[in-house]
Amino acid sequence: MSKNGKLYVFTGPSGTGKGTILSQVLKQDKRLFLSVSATTRAPREGETHGKHYYFLDKQTFEDKINKGEFLEHAQYIGNYYGTLEQPVNEQLKSGNDVVLEIEVQGAMQIHEKRPDAVMIFVAPPSIEELERRLIGRGTENAEKIAARMKTAEEELKQSDKFDYIIVNDDLDCAIADLLAILRAERCRNSKL
Amino acid sequence: MSKNGKLYVFTGPSGTGKGTILSQVLKQDKRLFLSVSATTRAPREGETHGKHYYFLDKQTFEDKINKGEFLEHAQYIGNYYGTLEQPVNEQLKSGNDVVLEIEVQGAMQIHEKRPDAVMIFVAPPSIEELERRLIGRGTENAEKIAARMKTAEEELKQSDKFDYIIVNDDLDCAIADLLAILRAERCRNSKL
Repeated sequence: MSKNGKLYVFTGPSGTGKGTILSQVLKQDKRLFLSVSATTRAPREGETHGKHYYFLDKQTFEDKINKGEFLEHAQYIGNYYGTLEQPVNEQLKSGNDVVLEIEVQGAMQIHEKRPDAVMIFVAPPSIEELERRLIGRGTENAEKIAARMKTAEEELKQSDKFDYIIVNDDLDCAIADLLAILRAERCRNSKL
Repeated sequence: MSKNGKLYVFTGPSGTGKGTILSQVLKQDKRLFLSVSATTRAPREGETHGKHYYFLDKQTFEDKINKGEFLEHAQYIGNYYGTLEQPVNEQLKSGNDVVLEIEVQGAMQIHEKRPDAVMIFVAPPSIEELERRLIGRGTENAEKIAARMKTAEEELKQSDKFDYIIVNDDLDCAIADLLAILRAERCRNSKL
């Protein structure tokens, strides 16, 4: 079979648990591959270049923007994030499914450029619960959390442009939802 | 929540195992309810009126057609099959999902009347395998099997009008596919 893989965009406000959901799903679904994003933000503890992100300096990132090498890119709290186009297309051509875990701003760019992409939004059960989770994470000060909450409220307004919405109330349910979406999409009639 | 249920149309050529798949899925998915069809064909052993089918005589069936009480109806190898509209709508309004297990001819009528219906087609791995299964069932003579095969070939041409195609190569996989489709559809964004 020379059938192309499918492109998935997986997004949601910071703190909704999209990273946790996706890492579990990637272990269970062997036909799905994670696209590695590029970013100018500093690596967090345990993050490896080329695995979690391509960590680029600002100048290099901007050069690649100007050369049109990004499928999407966005600025988010002072840093660039983006997806290089070529490695994604190579994976899809080889028949693998590819998922991009990106910020909402970048997701909307993909939506415009790639109408074939399956758009999935992870939502918190409520905006109050999201704030509790961000505070509980303990990695950011009150000012940064306030900025994230403001962004999250804007992002939640975008959710109605997505194909699927997963409400992450219970982690196991959210994982099962994403696995089901992938399985169902493989039965979807591509001729429609 | 006063959210309406979703309507599913589940079809495929005779002998593809759609009845077996659906009966297993109905045991596992408690939010899905089977619509009971009406038919003029004779009950098979173990079939109960009002549970497996509403067994109607030809005159009664035609009266109900004329009164417009059917959501769909079809003739198939000399018998009428149909779905009464009112019980389906009542289930949907109460928030339950409803699945119609019907012949392909009837499914295409639903597709026209109810664009909101999720259309699922069960296909055999191959036309040769379908014939083996029909012969193996041992319930019909060669002439009837030949008629079913001719119908099946026509029906397979309709499959590209469906939202999902489940290839029933392995029964457990086909059951998992249908369960995944139901779960994924519950995450689908109804605002799109």
